[in-house]
Amino acid sequence: MRYDAVSNKSLLSTYQQTISSAFIMGNSASIDIARSELSVGLSGLLGKKIPYLSSLANNQLVVGTKAKVSAILKIAEKEYESLGDEGFMIKSVLQDGKRLTVITANTDVAVLYGVFQFLRLLQTEQSISSLNLISKPAIKLRVLNHWDNLNRHVERGYAGMSIWDWHRLPGYIDQRYIDYARTNASVGINGTVLTNVNASAVVLTAAYLEKVAALADVFRPYGIKVYLTARFSAPIEIGNLKTADPLNDEVRLWWKQKIDEIYKYVPDFGGFLVKANSEGQPGPQNYGRNHADGANMLADALEPHGGIVMWRAFVYSNESPEDRFKQAANEFLPLDGSFRKNVMVQVKNGPIDFQPREPFSPLFGLMKKTPLMMEFQITQEYLGQGTTLVYEAPMFKEVMNADTYAKGAGSTIAKVIEGDLYNHSLSGIAGVSNIGNDMNWTGHLFGQSNWYAFGRLAWEPSLSSSQIASEWLRQTFSNNSSFLKTANQLMMNSHETMVNYMTPLGLHHIMGTGHHYGPAPWINNLNRADWNPVYYHKADSFGIGFDRTAAGSDALAQYTPEVRKLYGDIRTCPEPYLLWFHHVSWKHKMQSGRNLWEELCYKYNAGVDSVRSMQKQWTQLSAFVDEERFKQVSMLLKIQEKEAVWWRNACLLYFQQFSNMAIPPQYERPDHDLEYYKGLRFPFAPGNG
Amino acid sequence: MRYDAVSNKSLLSTYQQTISSAFIMGNSASIDIARSELSVGLSGLLGKKIPYLSSLANNQLVVGTKAKVSAILKIAEKEYESLGDEGFMIKSVLQDGKRLTVITANTDVAVLYGVFQFLRLLQTEQSISSLNLISKPAIKLRVLNHWDNLNRHVERGYAGMSIWDWHRLPGYIDQRYIDYARTNASVGINGTVLTNVNASAVVLTAAYLEKVAALADVFRPYGIKVYLTARFSAPIEIGNLKTADPLNDEVRLWWKQKIDEIYKYVPDFGGFLVKANSEGQPGPQNYGRNHADGANMLADALEPHGGIVMWRAFVYSNESPEDRFKQAANEFLPLDGSFRKNVMVQVKNGPIDFQPREPFSPLFGLMKKTPLMMEFQITQEYLGQGTTLVYEAPMFKEVMNADTYAKGAGSTIAKVIEGDLYNHSLSGIAGVSNIGNDMNWTGHLFGQSNWYAFGRLAWEPSLSSSQIASEWLRQTFSNNSSFLKTANQLMMNSHETMVNYMTPLGLHHIMGTGHHYGPAPWINNLNRADWNPVYYHKADSFGIGFDRTAAGSDALAQYTPEVRKLYGDIRTCPEPYLLWFHHVSWKHKMQSGRNLWEELCYKYNAGVDSVRSMQKQWTQLSAFVDEERFKQVSMLLKIQEKEAVWWRNACLLYFQQFSNMAIPPQYERPDHDLEYYKGLRFPFAPGNG
Repeated sequence: MRYDAVSNKSLLSTYQQTISSAFIMGNSASIDIARSELSVGLSGLLGKKIPYLSSLANNQLVVGTKAKVSAILKIAEKEYESLGDEGFMIKSVLQDGKRLTVITANTDVAVLYGVFQFLRLLQTEQSISSLNLISKPAIKLRVLNHWDNLNRHVERGYAGMSIWDWHRLPGYIDQRYIDYARTNASVGINGTVLTNVNASAVVLTAAYLEKVAALADVFRPYGIKVYLTARFSAPIEIGNLKTADPLNDEVRLWWKQKIDEIYKYVPDFGGFLVKANSEGQPGPQNYGRNHADGANMLADALEPHGGIVMWRAFVYSNESPEDRFKQAANEFLPLDGSFRKNVMVQVKNGPIDFQPREPFSPLFGLMKKTPLMMEFQITQEYLGQGTTLVYEAPMFKEVMNADTYAKGAGSTIAKVIEGDLYNHSLSGIAGVSNIGNDMNWTGHLFGQSNWYAFGRLAWEPSLSSSQIASEWLRQTFSNNSSFLKTANQLMMNSHETMVNYMTPLGLHHIMGTGHHYGPAPWINNLNRADWNPVYYHKADSFGIGFDRTAAGSDALAQYTPEVRKLYGDIRTCPEPYLLWFHHVSWKHKMQSGRNLWEELCYKYNAGVDSVRSMQKQWTQLSAFVDEERFKQVSMLLKIQEKEAVWWRNACLLYFQQFSNMAIPPQYERPDHDLEYYKGLRFPFAPGNG
Repeated sequence: MRYDAVSNKSLLSTYQQTISSAFIMGNSASIDIARSELSVGLSGLLGKKIPYLSSLANNQLVVGTKAKVSAILKIAEKEYESLGDEGFMIKSVLQDGKRLTVITANTDVAVLYGVFQFLRLLQTEQSISSLNLISKPAIKLRVLNHWDNLNRHVERGYAGMSIWDWHRLPGYIDQRYIDYARTNASVGINGTVLTNVNASAVVLTAAYLEKVAALADVFRPYGIKVYLTARFSAPIEIGNLKTADPLNDEVRLWWKQKIDEIYKYVPDFGGFLVKANSEGQPGPQNYGRNHADGANMLADALEPHGGIVMWRAFVYSNESPEDRFKQAANEFLPLDGSFRKNVMVQVKNGPIDFQPREPFSPLFGLMKKTPLMMEFQITQEYLGQGTTLVYEAPMFKEVMNADTYAKGAGSTIAKVIEGDLYNHSLSGIAGVSNIGNDMNWTGHLFGQSNWYAFGRLAWEPSLSSSQIASEWLRQTFSNNSSFLKTANQLMMNSHETMVNYMTPLGLHHIMGTGHHYGPAPWINNLNRADWNPVYYHKADSFGIGFDRTAAGSDALAQYTPEVRKLYGDIRTCPEPYLLWFHHVSWKHKMQSGRNLWEELCYKYNAGVDSVRSMQKQWTQLSAFVDEERFKQVSMLLKIQEKEAVWWRNACLLYFQQFSNMAIPPQYERPDHDLEYYKGLRFPFAPGNG
């Protein structure tokens, strides 16, 4: 949303010529916003005020819905048909000798989307001389999940506290709400779940619904629907009932009345996101019912209003000795087909929990009768948190491009969540927000790129990570080509770099207890087996890794035969996933020719080296970045280097106890002993609990 | 710190002529800051870049310490003598035909203070043609107290979370630290206690001392010393000792070594603020020792390094049936004379707890051998919190101007805390900070005026509230005289307004339990008698108020005879303090001619009316305030009006049960019944705990 003047002089002059005036039709709240965004954007980018006219003129930007535009311009009916409610087109049109640039769509909000896209074209210095751009979202629900508590603590938040100032709502409308809505609309996000999945029932009381309504009023003209998390036991906690059994008539009536009440406050309320019977949250199983019983009860009450239920599949049981990897699929596959039409099951990208690299969840592709919603985590719970520069688009894309083989080759996860694979009319994608009240929204400046990338990919999953990175870099810093080359590389390598120094070769969940900050592969004393890192890496004198083949937990059986075969054979299993599926000998020969221990040493050191390269690259970019932001990122990269060294040293020293092999001489020696690393404590690490 | 161009054209031209160039001598960190502040400030205010020369020239601003300036200019030695370490002078000088404006002082930091003052002169459009301004602080230690926990929760904070991003320190230096230091230096604050008085020992561990050192490094060139809160049981919690007995040799050695360690990290560490044996905090009394034993142990270890102890007198006992009003004085007066030279006792302005209006603590004036430090609360715990516009300077001044009569008439509190009354060389004043990570620092924009006023009054207690308000308004919004007239009035009346609708006529501590948000005079079920509002108002069918005369708790006996006489006689007791000291009949005739019940109704309604006047006044100011800030304050004033109505209705309905008299017909009727107000709950009110 920086609308600095276009620096390319000849391009600027072309832009100025092409957009000599603007003709913006309509008067809704959304169109008024489009008008003012254009006013701010164009005067910034073009360096002068563009007159708003009320009739056609040569070299004009024409903006309006079909109803307005088709009355004065010849645009084929069927072009509009393909756009749906959210798509837009931006076209260069010659009519009656007038050169026009037209932004149009079927709805006011989609016109606004088009306006943001048009401004992006200028910001990123694209040609606008002969435009014929048609854009519509591939996924219907593109939603941020805020794990924000009502006391403004953000679970897994590393950017300050919640931007929702509940106490001063509804009376005080923070400017941030407006800027949040602008930003989301400009990147393609059309929904927001305001509250944490570890939910409080209090948000469903009248005093809070009034606050929710105030936010919904701000967001509505930006096309953003509001959702809430429903605490399953709310009928007990705020309804004075004795049970929350989803088949109990009183409970069903309570939810029906509560939902009717919500719609009085928020007529276009989106629906509920629910975490039930997971990590201590209440749910239908407390009453001997299943997830479908719970979801359907809410869905029935939401249905008359057009609301939906997003029911999370992130469940694993305290009691079950089963590999946690398998539990979600075990629990949900049998329920496929028993959910109401307005229920989506929201599945984390991987079977465990947002690890730096995870194989895709077997539910994708297998659960055919239920629309599945993807849950990505934008906030960096396991990705170095507030001090790590990691561009997540390559990770998101890796998951979306993964092939489930559910309907033969090419059955990618992207197709599943777009709803295409099984022709679901509902489709959705959620990103756990990395937003807080920090000055720059995301704590780490580059966290903004992940919010941006999530939105852009949700709209158009076929965009490449590199293309999105360039868009963001151009809008955030500079269109200079040498800047872009280096900065793009820095971003594109950042995810693999982090995987290398944290969890290379398929290691997973070896982070510090609770806060998940830093390495702690040695932890083995937590109550639940599957909360302990040793559960996941299973290092011993023979080797390391979790055997999920038929000889082990057989989690691989949950995948299609093609996937099972690929990952199940140690010879074909891609090495980045190796230790997810195999318990591998320290002496196992890797593709590089090194044995596993040496490869581990190599990867950890490569990760550290890459952070150092990132530092050098960033230093090269100083001329293109203002001093304050340049310093911020420099300081954080320095912290990241220390953390990378810490990860490498702690993990290698720990695993060396099992491999009984030396760290090859070409690598740096750890600067402390293992006991030192084991002794580190972070009682106030952010985002915890 | 807004350096907008001076809008008065003729003044601007005079300024530009007077400051045609600048000659800034010296190269320390503080002088470099002075140089860059002048560069930013002058180019903003004068609308053009001022050349920096390295020799004298006509119409020049000359800046430097005595060592530099006296080498080239004739300024009398004794002028410098009076300045001390922190004072500065700004003088118009004619030398060798050159007209010069000289900012000079004995130290680099004081030169920086002078630079900030000079910029303020321009910002507030004062004449600079014949300056002879000498300014030095009346109080030595001018300190902010941050009640900030290490997890970034701010106790009684209404402006987001703590600005101290402990997790990313020492590596990440947030720009906010620098801006915080600039702001403090510009208003005269020279110390900051980083941590909550309800302390964690963890801040004294090496990992945190490194973080503290990083902050101290940022603050040092701005003249700001860092202090910490010392948890009395730290030797047990992080030192592995079995006791924290201040007379135990191991304990004494532990603190000595810990303090030596702190000074390795922060060579100019200021010292400790301690809350001991108060509200559950550990202290020397746990071991049968007294407050002096505890304070002196720390003082002995700090003394070789030049550090001090600020020991809080805010104590009241769970077990004691004594009027809480009396307890601090009862406990501390006997210890007068037994504290080390480097101990100050820090006393809240009133005997209870930062009420909207409190009589002064009897300790002021009575405790003669110990330097007393004033503790004001800038954050609005009991003053409407984040939604109330209240300018606190009149409240601060009311306390400072109060006469203790300790050495006869004129023995004001100001003289006590300046150290003059008993010739103490140490003097200090503390303000509990209202700062958080909100975009505008203080949540409510007008909260900034309280931070500003605290600093200005700490430097120069004789400044009037109105003068400080005008300075702040000029620097924050506009120098327009009609704007200033209305806005100044709005600010100056705001405190009395709030007292009227919250706690008129000497009512106190009738706020909601725990969070202290909103009215709850009915609360009578808390464990401790003196946590219950009914303890403080004692309403019954006869009347209302706390009898603290000899017939009652006799707290008045703690004051000097003059004060005792004034407040002790219901006929002379100033009505704003009436119910602090007397249990008064509902039928008591007030000076207005109304009886007490009618007066209460009058005051509560006057408060509501005044908030409505404030709204009207603010509306008149829209032309002088940018849209975003104008709207922010408008929204908050609307909330404040609702809250004022709520206070009035809830309190009058509740007290009416005892007065058994009707609300006079000229006033608005409550829009709900008492049960409604009693039923309101705020489980997530900010700042609690």
